[in-house]
Amino acid sequence: MIPFNKPYLSGNETNYIKDAVATGKISGNGYFTKKCHGFFEKQYGFYKCLLTTSCTDALEMAAILIDIQPGDEVILPSYTFVSTANAFVLRGAKLIFADSRTDHPGIDEDSIEALVTSKTKAIVPVHYAGVACDMDKIMALSEKYNLYVIEDAAQAIDSYYTGKDGVKRALGSIGHLAAFSFHETKNIISGEGGMLAINDKDFAERAEIIWEKGTNRSAFFRGEVNKYGWVDVGSSFLPSDIIAAFLWAQLENLKNIQSRRLEIWNTYHSKIEQWANSNQIDLPQVPGYATNNAHMYYLVCRDLEQRNELIAYLKSNGISAVFHYLSLHKSEFYQANHDGRSLPQTDRYTDCLVRLPMFFELNENEVIHQIKLFK
Amino acid sequence: MIPFNKPYLSGNETNYIKDAVATGKISGNGYFTKKCHGFFEKQYGFYKCLLTTSCTDALEMAAILIDIQPGDEVILPSYTFVSTANAFVLRGAKLIFADSRTDHPGIDEDSIEALVTSKTKAIVPVHYAGVACDMDKIMALSEKYNLYVIEDAAQAIDSYYTGKDGVKRALGSIGHLAAFSFHETKNIISGEGGMLAINDKDFAERAEIIWEKGTNRSAFFRGEVNKYGWVDVGSSFLPSDIIAAFLWAQLENLKNIQSRRLEIWNTYHSKIEQWANSNQIDLPQVPGYATNNAHMYYLVCRDLEQRNELIAYLKSNGISAVFHYLSLHKSEFYQANHDGRSLPQTDRYTDCLVRLPMFFELNENEVIHQIKLFK
Repeated sequence: MIPFNKPYLSGNETNYIKDAVATGKISGNGYFTKKCHGFFEKQYGFYKCLLTTSCTDALEMAAILIDIQPGDEVILPSYTFVSTANAFVLRGAKLIFADSRTDHPGIDEDSIEALVTSKTKAIVPVHYAGVACDMDKIMALSEKYNLYVIEDAAQAIDSYYTGKDGVKRALGSIGHLAAFSFHETKNIISGEGGMLAINDKDFAERAEIIWEKGTNRSAFFRGEVNKYGWVDVGSSFLPSDIIAAFLWAQLENLKNIQSRRLEIWNTYHSKIEQWANSNQIDLPQVPGYATNNAHMYYLVCRDLEQRNELIAYLKSNGISAVFHYLSLHKSEFYQANHDGRSLPQTDRYTDCLVRLPMFFELNENEVIHQIKLFK
Repeated sequence: MIPFNKPYLSGNETNYIKDAVATGKISGNGYFTKKCHGFFEKQYGFYKCLLTTSCTDALEMAAILIDIQPGDEVILPSYTFVSTANAFVLRGAKLIFADSRTDHPGIDEDSIEALVTSKTKAIVPVHYAGVACDMDKIMALSEKYNLYVIEDAAQAIDSYYTGKDGVKRALGSIGHLAAFSFHETKNIISGEGGMLAINDKDFAERAEIIWEKGTNRSAFFRGEVNKYGWVDVGSSFLPSDIIAAFLWAQLENLKNIQSRRLEIWNTYHSKIEQWANSNQIDLPQVPGYATNNAHMYYLVCRDLEQRNELIAYLKSNGISAVFHYLSLHKSEFYQANHDGRSLPQTDRYTDCLVRLPMFFELNENEVIHQIKLFK
């Protein structure tokens, strides 16, 4: 059986965990946590990074930081993971769902402006499959209407966007805030884990406080205040240094991991093109302004029936391919709150998208061999 | 230098982490997570357990489960960690702070009834130092006024309460819900980590959904529903199985850990009694209905000056003793919302309490030797 995902291990994960344990400090914000923060800030130009226990938690921190109040509106794609939505619902926001693009499951940037009202507080673009949304368009709306932009970069580590100014910027470094995931299904993993990237300096001090349960503990240990206490709302967003130690072993192998994933992606892309065309199946497209971090290889089938048949066929031949994301605007939880607009592209990806196995140790040619036999 | 805390390691932590990694599933709800759940449910009689990334997160789950709405009132001690308070503030609750007992830093059970109003939704007793609150009194109020009881059992693993009915019950098994911590400063650790114990069966199904980001994913994998989707609010409360693997190595050594901690506690207690009496310093008291899980050894000095002198003296002699908890009703964040009642015992413990080093490998006689020289 070829699984859909298999966590990659560099080999040093448990060694570094042993090192973390040997320091006698395995709670949050320890030696490896700081190393990871430093790496990300330097590598991708984020102003400040804070590891979190999940990408979900990073999004929740963002919702607290921008001070979402009941009734505030947040614009996000309907074709996304529930955490993109939950983080804002937990603060009382009203979700305004945007449709996906016809050529890509990402948010249709051109549909956003019509959704802006006086209550809109933020736009949350999701860089689906690690492929950049058109951030020039989104940041222009942010400026025009004074909206926060929170990049859901769960899948988007080590991916870039080149704007009209010709500057190539890392995803997660463009919006006011960004959230990353290191869940075991991602390129770089720590089992469960995430990170908040803070690009708007005005959020840096408060982010650290919220991260530390609403206390100014970090400032205290830096000698900036005489004692620390409860100064704000907050939660325990910081992961154990055990998790950071694991992550560090991954980061040391970032180039190697990315290179191998890209190789798999490109092999898929070139070898199944003809088969896809003859079956009216769409392959992923990467716009010119975006790079490909090879997070995911997906197909868009011509309809639900074909998608389900393909998944069943692959399963019967020992290959686990999966669909995901059910239109959030039609979810049991939120459909009654949705404003009734139809989101046809969202529904199309819900019905037709299938993800192929994608992991470091994959023998992609075995998958390709099987898939080509499907008609 | 004798530190205040040193994480105890059984020796198998990294072995089990390796095992977890070898399963290919290091996200949440894996092999070790289920082993830990089973252990706790069997050992302590909790109806259902869910590991969380922190005790804070377990308290947040509890606040969501009892459906705290803005304006609902929650009664809790002022002498507690900020997380007890934050979890409910995040849902919009108004905090009603109770004072501590004169003989113990735990909530003054007899002061609670006067604080109950028509808006009161829950009482959150904190089992300070792992010593039980008088749960008969609290559960009687719960029944009389139809209030939820959420035990903050952060420090209270492996500790018990014997009620008037003569039945000895584990702390965390008495209230509707309970939250535990496995932070590195606790008896049983996983770096950062926690657990929600669910005793009211009516919360079990929804707890699992909230834990899984508001989806019915767990029910789906058990074959109870045909597909899973977004059915409720939620977050990513579940820790990586790496964390659960670490915790499992600790649980296998629970008896050994508890036995050694109790030895230290008893040695402290017997050998410094005379010194404490002659310096007007109070030693901890354990009521007859409670057991002692030896989480903490603390002293209550006669005043702030003596407390600070004692800490400074010990520090200058290579011993790290610490104070903690600043009255939350006087915190920068919440003082303006407090109703103005003075809470003299809370303030006394804020000023006068000091915690002595307490960890498995401690040479307690070195501490005792030094402390006896303080006058």
